[in-house]
Amino acid sequence: MSGIPTQEEDIANPTYAYVGAFIDELQRAGIQHVVICPGSRSTPLALAMASQPALRIWMHIDERSAAFFGLGLAKQLHQPVALLCTSGTAAANFLPAVVEANLTHIPLLILTADRPHELRDCGAPQAIEQNRLYGSHTKWFMDVALPEASAAALRYIRTIANRATALTMAIPAGPVHLNLPFREPLTPDPLPDQPLPEVSQRSPLAWHGRPEHAPYVRVSDTPLGALAAEELTRLAALIGTKPRGLLVVGPCDNPALAEPLLQMAHTLHYPVLADPLSQLRGDPSAQSSVLTSYDAFLRIESFIAQAEPELIIRFGAMPTSKPLLLYMKRYAVCPQIVIDEHGGWNDPTQLASEFIHADPPTLCRALSNLLMDGAESSAEAKQAWLTSWQHTDQLTRQALLTSMHDLPALFEGRIFSELAELLPAESTLYVGNSMPVRDLDTFFWPDQRHIRCLGNRGANGIDGVVSSALGASAATRNKQASVLVIGDLSFLHDLNGLIAAHLHKLSLTIVLVNNDGGGIFSFLPQAAHPEHFEQLFGTPTGLDFRPAAQMYGGKFQRVKDWQGFREAINEGIDRGGLHIVEVPTERSSNVQMHRQLWQAVEKALQAASVANGR
Amino acid sequence: MSGIPTQEEDIANPTYAYVGAFIDELQRAGIQHVVICPGSRSTPLALAMASQPALRIWMHIDERSAAFFGLGLAKQLHQPVALLCTSGTAAANFLPAVVEANLTHIPLLILTADRPHELRDCGAPQAIEQNRLYGSHTKWFMDVALPEASAAALRYIRTIANRATALTMAIPAGPVHLNLPFREPLTPDPLPDQPLPEVSQRSPLAWHGRPEHAPYVRVSDTPLGALAAEELTRLAALIGTKPRGLLVVGPCDNPALAEPLLQMAHTLHYPVLADPLSQLRGDPSAQSSVLTSYDAFLRIESFIAQAEPELIIRFGAMPTSKPLLLYMKRYAVCPQIVIDEHGGWNDPTQLASEFIHADPPTLCRALSNLLMDGAESSAEAKQAWLTSWQHTDQLTRQALLTSMHDLPALFEGRIFSELAELLPAESTLYVGNSMPVRDLDTFFWPDQRHIRCLGNRGANGIDGVVSSALGASAATRNKQASVLVIGDLSFLHDLNGLIAAHLHKLSLTIVLVNNDGGGIFSFLPQAAHPEHFEQLFGTPTGLDFRPAAQMYGGKFQRVKDWQGFREAINEGIDRGGLHIVEVPTERSSNVQMHRQLWQAVEKALQAASVANGR
Repeated sequence: MSGIPTQEEDIANPTYAYVGAFIDELQRAGIQHVVICPGSRSTPLALAMASQPALRIWMHIDERSAAFFGLGLAKQLHQPVALLCTSGTAAANFLPAVVEANLTHIPLLILTADRPHELRDCGAPQAIEQNRLYGSHTKWFMDVALPEASAAALRYIRTIANRATALTMAIPAGPVHLNLPFREPLTPDPLPDQPLPEVSQRSPLAWHGRPEHAPYVRVSDTPLGALAAEELTRLAALIGTKPRGLLVVGPCDNPALAEPLLQMAHTLHYPVLADPLSQLRGDPSAQSSVLTSYDAFLRIESFIAQAEPELIIRFGAMPTSKPLLLYMKRYAVCPQIVIDEHGGWNDPTQLASEFIHADPPTLCRALSNLLMDGAESSAEAKQAWLTSWQHTDQLTRQALLTSMHDLPALFEGRIFSELAELLPAESTLYVGNSMPVRDLDTFFWPDQRHIRCLGNRGANGIDGVVSSALGASAATRNKQASVLVIGDLSFLHDLNGLIAAHLHKLSLTIVLVNNDGGGIFSFLPQAAHPEHFEQLFGTPTGLDFRPAAQMYGGKFQRVKDWQGFREAINEGIDRGGLHIVEVPTERSSNVQMHRQLWQAVEKALQAASVANGR
Repeated sequence: MSGIPTQEEDIANPTYAYVGAFIDELQRAGIQHVVICPGSRSTPLALAMASQPALRIWMHIDERSAAFFGLGLAKQLHQPVALLCTSGTAAANFLPAVVEANLTHIPLLILTADRPHELRDCGAPQAIEQNRLYGSHTKWFMDVALPEASAAALRYIRTIANRATALTMAIPAGPVHLNLPFREPLTPDPLPDQPLPEVSQRSPLAWHGRPEHAPYVRVSDTPLGALAAEELTRLAALIGTKPRGLLVVGPCDNPALAEPLLQMAHTLHYPVLADPLSQLRGDPSAQSSVLTSYDAFLRIESFIAQAEPELIIRFGAMPTSKPLLLYMKRYAVCPQIVIDEHGGWNDPTQLASEFIHADPPTLCRALSNLLMDGAESSAEAKQAWLTSWQHTDQLTRQALLTSMHDLPALFEGRIFSELAELLPAESTLYVGNSMPVRDLDTFFWPDQRHIRCLGNRGANGIDGVVSSALGASAATRNKQASVLVIGDLSFLHDLNGLIAAHLHKLSLTIVLVNNDGGGIFSFLPQAAHPEHFEQLFGTPTGLDFRPAAQMYGGKFQRVKDWQGFREAINEGIDRGGLHIVEVPTERSSNVQMHRQLWQAVEKALQAASVANGR
């Protein structure tokens, strides 16, 4: 008898019978968290959600930040999260996060309240066209029927709740949009002492849902498996003939992947080029096949020239590293197998010779089994290939570490080598786009695999990152440390996101890399055109962010050196709450220091090559 | 020879020949202002714009605020404004302002840079589906062809520039979206000393545009006029038989309307119920037919009961006043003629008996001429009807003014009666949605018609209001005063907008009505459900906004009384720059004070009625 409100006053209002059934089913379908933005038209849904003790409600003021907060929450939890807003531009503010969720397969259930049909396209206040508002950026859309308290309507809305929630998780996972129109009264008025309508006795399932808290419709989707046996055999045969192979793993958030993938790499003696968001980094030993410094050494012609691969197998999204991309383009003739677990087409390079839509862990296990059975015809060649990459990776990391410590100023890249040492196990490290994720790529060498690295790498926007990180931190329930590294423009873009830390007492340590503008442009060809550079690309704002921290009740520390940085990070993690650690840097010297380090790598590799008599 | 870059190095890059021609035509077509957000993919357009001295460039960091800034600029200037952003979620952030521009017919030309076709839907960074990104919220969309430096391509892109710009202004005016894909190189590289290609000699128009700075295609649209003669005669005959008529003018921004409309009102002895955004308020004399206190006296049953109209003629968007709406619904049988100058269907009430798509000033003039010729059969009845409304309006205003001065605390409504006295001629008063625009409606009685009242009354969102006001203030070029009245949630929503004041040294005095949450909900039925009220609707944030002002270089003053308020406003207007005047109020006492004032009006009208022996 749980589910729809049982107090008679609610039943007297058909909207509340209908909405109560809907919200009841949402949580039966697996929704535990909802992010709500205040509004009037959304009142029935908001009140029904607040009456459901099983739902955790996160209020937010700015719908744009709210949607990114929901995205971070769903990403961290690997479960669907619902968003609710009122009618009008409120709903339009969800779009950026919806776009990101769609590209990164995050299950968001977007609920927008709407005006009823008679108030559409006729100048009514807060009425905008909300049908397919997010265009092709949601998996499914439905303009839901107006509330009615009939058994048929209740069966319909219970079904919609389960269908929509299941769709957020079905492959490819992603956002689903339900638009729900409501007529006045929006509150549970009138409040008479009417009994439950008689019809509720005749249709108990429609009115009360299924017994034992079961969903009205359980939805099961077959997960992807491995390929058919003959395809696997063909593939294993192909791979078996290629001793000089590479496994490239881009951003990927599948905890089940590491073990079978590393097992396959071991069997094949293939190096694994592991993007920092692949969740594979964490073994810095010389014997590890997981390489983490390729973004630096794949800039070195002498290495690239002698490192022609015979086969590349790619997992996850496109890796962050541009040198890796250029390396793969250089050897465009090399067969490239792309494994896409979302059934998509994850190859902007047009280098793929084969696309496989399968479950990566299952596929890796199946291939490993077949490959172990095969003849180890060229074990020596394979070992030489792997060792050459491992050796280069070790040399590169050593050169970067050594040279980095000689730099005179605070160097942006070092933030990540420092964090690799500072972060406790089970921490979440969220990284902003533009420079932070690139520096993470080059300079992040953790010695354990229990740091979760997250970023918004679907659309790579600088928007919504603060909120995404706060959403992810909310999901940790303050047990584990959450750190965000973000540039000043991206921080500014989502300054409103900070209010979630204030309202919900969340813990997040934010490393604010403040180079007063768009640091990445100094690395791009735009930097060669100084005339309009600062106006159009550098875009310095001259802002001091200390007041922002003050406004949202956060602590703000501007660090002067690495000792101070370490102390500030430790303090942020230990104390909890909102903690902003500003690392002041300078855009032009930052480019120079990056280039200096890449030169140091080149010299180190040359020296080693001479020493080896090559 | 003006127009495309004449330096040979630019011509060597086909992108720059093409984009140069495009930007050249944009300003020939009438674009003078562009709002640019930094990005890489948009580099060709940004650099070409920066090379055009005729274009005024407004840089902004946050695309959401930027788009609203452009909206405010275009609204104030009555001319098209271009927006430019890079590919990805940057473009998605434009949506809320695009929705508002579409509903309020603001000419925005939205230019989104995009990845070329080979990087679409295949996992490339910062690549999202941008085709029809704004759905039905733009008038026109085109996915523009990739750059080419052929005469055919240049003729095409010159044509597109003129066609798109003209479309932003053609009836109904509104936003137009061009999506422009670019391949690398995005900068004007290489930079060889190549001469202009020979083809440029053979196709000078394509390469250089038309002589004497003429647009490549001039576009002329016939404006709406009045109706056909027989329709006018029928209409005048109908109106002539209805002595008890009303002119209702909602939000409307047509400077040509006041004179002919007031002339028609005079001829007909019809009261004019003038929304504060109708731009008609400003004559508080007892003889004025423009009524400004109807939002208060249309709550009084004794007045409404004896004020049955025989005809209502509506102009502009739906008026803000809910009592007016309920009054019209009460007399649903009354014929209602709606004049819609945008060719739309501006009637959420379904009360219209006749829709007229015509130019309101022309129509008013034509009708006035016909009506003056007609017999003044019922001059006395007409005068009695008008006098009754005028008298009630005067009594109401007097009652509100008197009672308001007796209130013990800072009362939100009084902000507007104070501003009506404080604002110099030619000021712009921007008002936020939710409570400010409603209080403006009830309490704003300027004594001159040279205060421009603006608001975002298309979707009535609380988003983007700071930026819209700053855009409008940018268009005044600091000559006239700009004041914004906004609530704390709306201010918070667009806090990022303040950066425009900082970057472009704009002047705006912001009256921040801080009741710590959503004040309007205390007036709504939600207030009767206290259990979840504060969590879901009141949504107090407890924020102190002083640091925000500090961060953006603004002055912050929290006032304690009306004397302090007046001084702060005068100081803000006199000194210029960003000036935030916080009026701290309290949500529940605010409702009580409003109700107290409406009761005072009721008493005053009763007393007058007794005195008149009615």
